[in-house]
Amino acid sequence: MVFMNKISSLSLKEVSITGRFWGDFIEKVRTHVIPYQWKVLNDAIPGVTPSYCMHNFRVAAGKEEGKFGGCVFQDSDVAKWLEAVGYILMQHPDAELEKLADSAIDDIVAAQQPDGYLDTYYIINGLEKRFTNLKDNHELYCLGHFLEGAVAYYQATGKDKLLNALIRYVDLVDRLIGSEEGKIHGYPGHEEMELALMKLYSITKDEKHLKLAKYFIDERGKEPLFFREETEKNDNKFHWEKSPLSYHYYQAGKPVREQQHAVGHAVRAVYLYSGMADVAVETGDQSLIDACKRLWDDVTNRQMYITGAIGSSAHGEAFTFDYDLPNDTIYAETCASIGLCFFAKRMMDMECSAQYADVLERSLYNGVIAAMSYDGTSFFYVNPLEVVPEASEKDYLRHHVKVTRQKWFGCACCPPNIARFLASFGNYIFSKSGDTFYVHLFVESKTATELKSGTFALDIQTNYPWENTILMKVKTAPSSSAQIAIRIPGWCEDYKLRINGKTVQTPVENGYAMMEQVFRKEDEIELILDMPVTIVEANPRVREDIGKLAVMRGPLVYCLEEADNGKDLHRIYIERNTAFRHEYDRTFFGGAVILESDGKRLSQEEWGADSLYRKVSEPKFEDVRLKWIPYYLWANRESGEMTVWVRRK
Amino acid sequence: MVFMNKISSLSLKEVSITGRFWGDFIEKVRTHVIPYQWKVLNDAIPGVTPSYCMHNFRVAAGKEEGKFGGCVFQDSDVAKWLEAVGYILMQHPDAELEKLADSAIDDIVAAQQPDGYLDTYYIINGLEKRFTNLKDNHELYCLGHFLEGAVAYYQATGKDKLLNALIRYVDLVDRLIGSEEGKIHGYPGHEEMELALMKLYSITKDEKHLKLAKYFIDERGKEPLFFREETEKNDNKFHWEKSPLSYHYYQAGKPVREQQHAVGHAVRAVYLYSGMADVAVETGDQSLIDACKRLWDDVTNRQMYITGAIGSSAHGEAFTFDYDLPNDTIYAETCASIGLCFFAKRMMDMECSAQYADVLERSLYNGVIAAMSYDGTSFFYVNPLEVVPEASEKDYLRHHVKVTRQKWFGCACCPPNIARFLASFGNYIFSKSGDTFYVHLFVESKTATELKSGTFALDIQTNYPWENTILMKVKTAPSSSAQIAIRIPGWCEDYKLRINGKTVQTPVENGYAMMEQVFRKEDEIELILDMPVTIVEANPRVREDIGKLAVMRGPLVYCLEEADNGKDLHRIYIERNTAFRHEYDRTFFGGAVILESDGKRLSQEEWGADSLYRKVSEPKFEDVRLKWIPYYLWANRESGEMTVWVRRK
Repeated sequence: MVFMNKISSLSLKEVSITGRFWGDFIEKVRTHVIPYQWKVLNDAIPGVTPSYCMHNFRVAAGKEEGKFGGCVFQDSDVAKWLEAVGYILMQHPDAELEKLADSAIDDIVAAQQPDGYLDTYYIINGLEKRFTNLKDNHELYCLGHFLEGAVAYYQATGKDKLLNALIRYVDLVDRLIGSEEGKIHGYPGHEEMELALMKLYSITKDEKHLKLAKYFIDERGKEPLFFREETEKNDNKFHWEKSPLSYHYYQAGKPVREQQHAVGHAVRAVYLYSGMADVAVETGDQSLIDACKRLWDDVTNRQMYITGAIGSSAHGEAFTFDYDLPNDTIYAETCASIGLCFFAKRMMDMECSAQYADVLERSLYNGVIAAMSYDGTSFFYVNPLEVVPEASEKDYLRHHVKVTRQKWFGCACCPPNIARFLASFGNYIFSKSGDTFYVHLFVESKTATELKSGTFALDIQTNYPWENTILMKVKTAPSSSAQIAIRIPGWCEDYKLRINGKTVQTPVENGYAMMEQVFRKEDEIELILDMPVTIVEANPRVREDIGKLAVMRGPLVYCLEEADNGKDLHRIYIERNTAFRHEYDRTFFGGAVILESDGKRLSQEEWGADSLYRKVSEPKFEDVRLKWIPYYLWANRESGEMTVWVRRK
Repeated sequence: MVFMNKISSLSLKEVSITGRFWGDFIEKVRTHVIPYQWKVLNDAIPGVTPSYCMHNFRVAAGKEEGKFGGCVFQDSDVAKWLEAVGYILMQHPDAELEKLADSAIDDIVAAQQPDGYLDTYYIINGLEKRFTNLKDNHELYCLGHFLEGAVAYYQATGKDKLLNALIRYVDLVDRLIGSEEGKIHGYPGHEEMELALMKLYSITKDEKHLKLAKYFIDERGKEPLFFREETEKNDNKFHWEKSPLSYHYYQAGKPVREQQHAVGHAVRAVYLYSGMADVAVETGDQSLIDACKRLWDDVTNRQMYITGAIGSSAHGEAFTFDYDLPNDTIYAETCASIGLCFFAKRMMDMECSAQYADVLERSLYNGVIAAMSYDGTSFFYVNPLEVVPEASEKDYLRHHVKVTRQKWFGCACCPPNIARFLASFGNYIFSKSGDTFYVHLFVESKTATELKSGTFALDIQTNYPWENTILMKVKTAPSSSAQIAIRIPGWCEDYKLRINGKTVQTPVENGYAMMEQVFRKEDEIELILDMPVTIVEANPRVREDIGKLAVMRGPLVYCLEEADNGKDLHRIYIERNTAFRHEYDRTFFGGAVILESDGKRLSQEEWGADSLYRKVSEPKFEDVRLKWIPYYLWANRESGEMTVWVRRK
């Protein structure tokens, strides 16, 4: 299979996000997160654990005295920062920020070794050990992040200093690692370089870059297992030896094409799958396409939370097994939700099917943005669906589940990942293929891009997800027939589509309403989505959700917080025909639709503190009025209990 | 408060267990467990991890070459074995077994140092380090177990070789550890010696032994904290530094009289509380009595499973917090249930209140005996209330929850603990005070003991817990008035009490039916307990049990197994008025009452493997016929799912 009419993203330069919902997030990244992060990278924030990131580069370059500081993957923090800066600069030129980035790049490149090598951990601690522990020491992961940063920065500014330096580093890796005799038959312990090489390839079109990405994917998990041999050679203790994860932690338990279930560290997994999808789309490799679809199916239909979060267990920050989705001991790392968006985006490039954008939207509006506080200064690493402060305090199994967002982390992967992801959000809204223009997400924006037959420009006005109307105005269109493919969300049971005020019936293909005609400037397409509050149930195989219900409106999952509904949220029940009142509250953290409903609370009366078990009685319920807020806004007030799933009466 | 009319246990020599239920367990201990264990202690079972236990004594005595093997508390294994042997010999004289025990004692005492010290770990590895790590290295724990073993063996045989050796060791400890200046102001990291010293005191009546026990209890948790100072002195890493447990792991977070909640390692906790109760009963110390009652209340009314299991978390094998009782990630160590029986027994010595024997009975018939397989050769360390084999295999949080009993363990505390406990079971059935004879448990047995006014002998015939009638025949009684106090179980809503065929109404005090009269030989007292199958609910504060029901009959908790009811037990619902059919099945693992009932299974139809969430629908149920077996007999057939709590329809 070869993708003749390749589906491709728009450049960030072609998309301008004008509305508040996503505009606000991106603006927070630009005005708060990026400057704050730069200070962190330079150890300039009192009270925050030093990052040592830029210090390490200066030490590696001989500009500064000192030791290596931070984690073995510390280099990747500035790489992600540069990537975010690149995306921001594409949308918002800023000479001062560019100057800052140039100076960072100077410091980075100054540390590069004559043969191209560039990883401060080994440059400072001893180059003789480089590439001897691919399994644990993140060299290729860091290189991957640098490639993403360099590509973004090059696309934004045209400056290729970092890009060229990294191409030299990739050349070195290519000389040392690969299937040929005499080379190390290794692959990255933490996947990332696979998808990054494909980004590089999209710029360089150098077959070597595609080939290396493909090698990493093909070699992974093959017997004799490289990671086992490497561990034995190093005489290292294998960290996962007694764990049920074993080499599955690295998705290396078997070759990727034989993997039936998503396993191991969730972030690594979805980064790998993203790289696999990139290679599959580029090469048309059917066995790889099948593997991507099979793993997508397993992740999203058997191992994904209703919020789009993934990774059920803190042990290994990992998947566990199908239908195992505990809400309280959950891991659900922010980076994993972001990685799931990466994977979804690439599946959208593979084929037109709304299931991908449905998951993307679910993850975006819930799992991803919940990680950042409303003021943009604190972050969740772990995103639970149920929180009890006493459990987070006293129970080891839930000790990793924080009740309030943290300022920064010792292992600071999530905040910079949110920053680079939100900064690139414009990439996820539309795509194009031939003369078809796809609208995947509903975002107030202005867009102009080249279709096969000419320029196409579209302005979108909407107050989605708070309101259900999306108004799309054609600003420019090819003179010949073109097609607009508008995603009808999976959560939407009915909708209206109008052109210039006239309702139209269009065919729906794979979840997209396909409008094909000659479009004219000022044509108005109006999509009105039925967006009632919907009560949702989980597949009964999900042990933790059986007998429970969740509440959604449009793409948003709602939750109950102690601040509105008191303690002991687990005693709350709702009926399946519960009626909801919804109202937009402009004062609620930038404005949000808040829900209210009746509910029942199982009575605690007649139970003192003096007994645990008794003969069954008729349950007594108290009437309660419940207030529901969007899940992504939880934990912006005083800390307390929170739950997404409530009991079904 | 001084206990004038002290409640005291009967000697094992005064009680003969004649019936099958408990008789079978004790016989298994005598004929299988004790011989098997002796082989384990001597590394004579191929395929079982060597114990090194007896080897260590011979090396310490210079009789054998070699290194110390096993855990730092390895000595305690033979101590527990000797204790079990002592109890068995009291009930079943056996010259060969006694000879074996004598030879073990010879080997043990041969290792004793001139100053009385006797711990093979330090004797072999270097005496200069002894008593420098009381927190972690179990010296006082081992000594405690040896004291229990020595007392039991002395009571059984009158032989005092080991007892005298240990009194010398206690003298040494008393010279080195205590509140006086120049002594180590320490106490045991793993409690045990407190209660053991009280057993010793009951024999020696030496105030020094009481004083040392009291010192250990009074000193614990006082600031400046001994364990913190010891850790700093040793420059050791503190294992629980980043854990929510911290010094609470050792019940040393605050002085014992200030402790409001049961915390930390569950076995250590109940061993400590047992020692506290012993000292409180002996001294009448009101603040200590209050602490015992408060901690008893917290353990049994807020942190105990329906099976009498305790210890919610595998992390630290510990309590977590009130009402936190997960059924699947549970720890519920066998030793903790046994320790809870120790604590209950001592509270029964403190005051006459049926709450203690109720918990004792609950723990005995469920938490304790479930740990041993029907054939007596394999054991559970962890006793879950819900098991899913795939979770035990693939999820780290449930990896410690085994689906089948194991032959032995590297850390083999549980099997010998079951052995010594079951061997001493006769101690738990009755007690006496003045002219009152207490019947706490209903066990087919023959008993004769001295009351204040003369000999009292009672024969009990019953097929309890399978049948509900207990027939007590007076065989001897004082010529003056005496009192029989018969516990009416907390689970029993109605009962009949007859003397010589005539129904009597007796006052019930603190849960005991009090019959006071002049008893004559051949008086027949018949107790008929209402024993319907009862559906039980948990306090709604228990998050994990809300919306669920459990099934009991008499003291027995029932469960569903996959072998009888298929997979996906979490989809099973029962109604609160479900009717049960009960039938004694003589072929079921020695005979047991099996239950059958109707139930519903939430349908999985219409849900393929292809979706996780959907708009709520009317739930569809399939009718199922359910088979319930006593919880203690689970996992004696092919491995599969098991659950105690089922959903309430």
